[in-house]
Amino acid sequence: MLLSTVMSLSGKGETTGLLFLYHHLQNNLYLNKLREMMQSRNIAACIINSSDPHLSQYVADNWKIRERISGFDGSAGTVVVLPEEAGLWTDSRYFLQAEMQLENSGILLFKNGLPDVPDYCSWIISNSKEGSIVGIDGRLFSTHKVEEMKEKFTAAGLALETDFVLTEALTDAHALTDGVTLSHPVSNTNTGVFIYDEKFAGISCSEKIKIIRQKIEEAKAGILLLTGLDEIAWTFNIRGNSVEYNPVTTAYATIATDSACIFIDDKELTPEVISYFGQNRIEILPYLSVFDFLSKLSPEQHILIDKQKVNYALFDAIPKSVSVVAKESPAGMLKAVKNETEIEGVRNAVIKDGVALIRAFYRLEKDLEAGVKVTESSFAEQLKICRAEQKDFFGESFPAITGYASHGAIVHYTATPESDAELRPDGLLLVDSGGNYFDGTTDITRTIALGKATKQQKTDYTNVLKGHIAIATAIFPEGTHGAQLDALARRPLWDNCLNYGHGTGHGVGHFLSVHEGPQNIRTKDNGVELKPGMLLSNEPGLYRKDEYGIRLENMILVKEYMETEFGRFFQFETLSLFPFDLQLIEQDMLSEKEIKWLNDYHVAVYEKLAPLLSEGEKKWVGRCPQL
Amino acid sequence: MLLSTVMSLSGKGETTGLLFLYHHLQNNLYLNKLREMMQSRNIAACIINSSDPHLSQYVADNWKIRERISGFDGSAGTVVVLPEEAGLWTDSRYFLQAEMQLENSGILLFKNGLPDVPDYCSWIISNSKEGSIVGIDGRLFSTHKVEEMKEKFTAAGLALETDFVLTEALTDAHALTDGVTLSHPVSNTNTGVFIYDEKFAGISCSEKIKIIRQKIEEAKAGILLLTGLDEIAWTFNIRGNSVEYNPVTTAYATIATDSACIFIDDKELTPEVISYFGQNRIEILPYLSVFDFLSKLSPEQHILIDKQKVNYALFDAIPKSVSVVAKESPAGMLKAVKNETEIEGVRNAVIKDGVALIRAFYRLEKDLEAGVKVTESSFAEQLKICRAEQKDFFGESFPAITGYASHGAIVHYTATPESDAELRPDGLLLVDSGGNYFDGTTDITRTIALGKATKQQKTDYTNVLKGHIAIATAIFPEGTHGAQLDALARRPLWDNCLNYGHGTGHGVGHFLSVHEGPQNIRTKDNGVELKPGMLLSNEPGLYRKDEYGIRLENMILVKEYMETEFGRFFQFETLSLFPFDLQLIEQDMLSEKEIKWLNDYHVAVYEKLAPLLSEGEKKWVGRCPQL
Repeated sequence: MLLSTVMSLSGKGETTGLLFLYHHLQNNLYLNKLREMMQSRNIAACIINSSDPHLSQYVADNWKIRERISGFDGSAGTVVVLPEEAGLWTDSRYFLQAEMQLENSGILLFKNGLPDVPDYCSWIISNSKEGSIVGIDGRLFSTHKVEEMKEKFTAAGLALETDFVLTEALTDAHALTDGVTLSHPVSNTNTGVFIYDEKFAGISCSEKIKIIRQKIEEAKAGILLLTGLDEIAWTFNIRGNSVEYNPVTTAYATIATDSACIFIDDKELTPEVISYFGQNRIEILPYLSVFDFLSKLSPEQHILIDKQKVNYALFDAIPKSVSVVAKESPAGMLKAVKNETEIEGVRNAVIKDGVALIRAFYRLEKDLEAGVKVTESSFAEQLKICRAEQKDFFGESFPAITGYASHGAIVHYTATPESDAELRPDGLLLVDSGGNYFDGTTDITRTIALGKATKQQKTDYTNVLKGHIAIATAIFPEGTHGAQLDALARRPLWDNCLNYGHGTGHGVGHFLSVHEGPQNIRTKDNGVELKPGMLLSNEPGLYRKDEYGIRLENMILVKEYMETEFGRFFQFETLSLFPFDLQLIEQDMLSEKEIKWLNDYHVAVYEKLAPLLSEGEKKWVGRCPQL
Repeated sequence: MLLSTVMSLSGKGETTGLLFLYHHLQNNLYLNKLREMMQSRNIAACIINSSDPHLSQYVADNWKIRERISGFDGSAGTVVVLPEEAGLWTDSRYFLQAEMQLENSGILLFKNGLPDVPDYCSWIISNSKEGSIVGIDGRLFSTHKVEEMKEKFTAAGLALETDFVLTEALTDAHALTDGVTLSHPVSNTNTGVFIYDEKFAGISCSEKIKIIRQKIEEAKAGILLLTGLDEIAWTFNIRGNSVEYNPVTTAYATIATDSACIFIDDKELTPEVISYFGQNRIEILPYLSVFDFLSKLSPEQHILIDKQKVNYALFDAIPKSVSVVAKESPAGMLKAVKNETEIEGVRNAVIKDGVALIRAFYRLEKDLEAGVKVTESSFAEQLKICRAEQKDFFGESFPAITGYASHGAIVHYTATPESDAELRPDGLLLVDSGGNYFDGTTDITRTIALGKATKQQKTDYTNVLKGHIAIATAIFPEGTHGAQLDALARRPLWDNCLNYGHGTGHGVGHFLSVHEGPQNIRTKDNGVELKPGMLLSNEPGLYRKDEYGIRLENMILVKEYMETEFGRFFQFETLSLFPFDLQLIEQDMLSEKEIKWLNDYHVAVYEKLAPLLSEGEKKWVGRCPQL
């Protein structure tokens, strides 16, 4: 699944249309309430993003404050509210959607990236009197971001207050409309915490803590603060239900040389989980007591925090006398490099996922032949049913994207009741979906022709496939960053003056978030080396507005290849198993090497999946001829 | 020419052996003198790099202080002197050379990049008592670097003094040995300042100043400080002889909204040059008075400086009450994008350069056939002679690298009297050379077989050529950074677990430095977009230790290609003109597209050069068959 589309998919797809209408009617209420609160606190400008105190990519509904204030529910966007004006900043993916959703809201749209569009800090500065106060909810911004903003505002004679708690500011207004109490946004969100079996995790919680303690010592610190929900789940081998599509639980944690604490709302922890924490010498403390814990750190302590991941309110709670070691979270990098058990688990999960997909696509073909009505959303539902039949299925890893014809070209498309198109024996269908199994998380995209493909569809598809194969077959030296490989995937498209606006690959978690950092393959370099054991997606695409979208995605694993006098070289192993649509391939455009890769891949797909398929399904897969 | 080799080539090649011996005998004298000076100033540690106050890549001999102190004359290296110990930090290219040159010097070698090797700041910190003073010559470090070091040292309880002027500290010791006075290191270095004709420059000095003034206003500043010698030469359309191989003159400059100053030692300025500055309303002030000028800026002024380019001593001279706008120098980016006249000039220069190369290589072949003795250095001399015969030749753009057989594998090789190998009809010869013509600077590398090539030599050569062609034929969207394209050149080598340790391409100046920033094609992203008009080198290579080196370099120009609904796309135009050695090509390894590029290139070389060649030379070039 595309990194750039993640936030727009985090809501419940089927309610989007309704929610949109509802927002439209209610947002003035929220805006009015917010302005009242601002006035009473003497705040001249308020910045609202769409995060939670763990700076999660996916957030629980109660944290969707920016959506509530503005009515705009795209993935990327920040709202600034002034006493008389308000503005929303978003990027080109959302210009159209934002224009629609902001209509009559009185909120101005600022199109990021266009010439002469100021960033929101500059806009605040030029619209506020010197000495004014800018208010933010410090829990929702990283320490790094707040430090950056403070510098800008201070230079311009404005003050930044970081304790303007938004959920409280909005409780009354919200209660007026739907009765949900937001003053304790974290209550009841850790339902279903369970122990993640070591047979899937590969390494015990106590072993992980031991390794992290070594990293803390290497960083010359004495204690580590963990705030990322996936990092906490990984470290302690626990999972939960706090966030849709993400098997995490809401908690903070600290690991010191001789102790460890988990800050979690313990009302619903099972005796088994409580005893597990006890066995691992992890103290259970109330979720919000982390602030108190940090404020009582003694001056001789050195605390390791990742300023990109720790929210400012937590950072601010640390006494100034305590030394802060600002460094990348060691849990993040440890989590990114999968162990042997995790890798074996994923290899198993992709087999189950391949079987589920073949079942769904085989049935789709039969249904269309038989004239049974299938729509984008009914096919998405079918995919979910087929995955749910597989062993150790936990849930979808994100809501499936099924974009038929021109819908496939909307990179962040989710079918709504209004848009839900019927699939017909004509045009292209783009399907991006994935599952969370106990043994691994999957993410795969295929584009298929439902009827006879046009010449342009075939050349486009083949160019995307060439890019996909370029990544799949890449060999690269130790030390290579993902960004260095990105152009290999784009070159066949660039050669024809085509391109796609999203990244080529994102990191994938292990029975965790389908998107995880820091590894990726993107245009912009983030300085992270690809290391054996890292799991990523390989998903070049092409989108022709009002026509169709093509994306071809497999999961890939970084592996050792060979060591020579020129150093160590790595390669990728493709994990996902599902055939490519040969009707869409222009064979003449492929090199011998590319044809060999494709043939080998199809042999592997057949050999690994056939034993688990019905005769009809087997025949359906087996019809992929060798090119 | 390789960016990574530039410093080692800046000395006079033929004296290296002698210089080395001389350094060996004298460096204790310098070290002792330095320690005396440190003691009298109570300085516990001194850091010595190899820069000049303009932070030039090439420096005049009197600024080679690190060489003088340590005896090590590699391009990259920093010496730290403590009262009892001293260390040199350098990278893997120089481990062997540094080991040799530091022998018996008492200076420890720190191999950058190896595990557990501390950086020099950490080494100073762990070897100095709290409260100690670290001394540097603030003129030789960028403002950015000093700010970084200050932060480190302050956190560790050390003080950094930036006024420890090294040349003065070394004057006496130096005078003892060779009589050169270093106390006025800039005297007499601006000999030969001349006006660079607008017919070559394309834009007048007054027009350039006008554009720069716009940029200063856009940056909300009122005055710009220019310190880069090539930026000053470009802005004012002047050239000079201050640095070998670089037609620049030693000066500082300021440009304000209504005035401009050049700070230059005016003793030898011709009446013509003085009158030129007058006509352009550029005030001439003494070179060193720039410090006084900066110190007298009034508090309401906003000065634009590039902290990566302006040395700390200058920055420090600016009163704290003046607002500093820290930004990339506008002259640097303007200079990087060549105008039409400059581009036409280079197109002409590469024709002359091609003719000179063909003359030299044709003669080499005849000489070897006739049994005439040719050595690496005599062939380098021959190249210089052939270039000097061309119209508007000013000098070589760097000392030619002629690496025969195993010498070709030494990436920073320069023939010395001891190493100078005789060329025989066997093995590979790598030749990297270039000229400064009034209409443009050139840089080209070819590798040729002097006898029958081995299978490995051919496959290696063909893989390097494939990488070269990948860059030459690349099409890429607007906004692409050079680093994104780097892997295209490396892929054919990576596929065979081969690689090269230098960048794929560097920026090239126009009748200026053969290396210029900010544009490049390297592994590490520097955030600079490739823009139409930028001139770069395209020079992948392969080096087999003790066997041979291969490098294939042409100059390339960024050009518009096409605009589609997917945006603007750019491509490169290859400028350099000289055939590739077909004896070294494995035709089976090339794709149809690659063969077409090669054939088209050879047709272009012949058509453009033939009218200027003798019958024999024409025949020699014309024997390149179509593949």
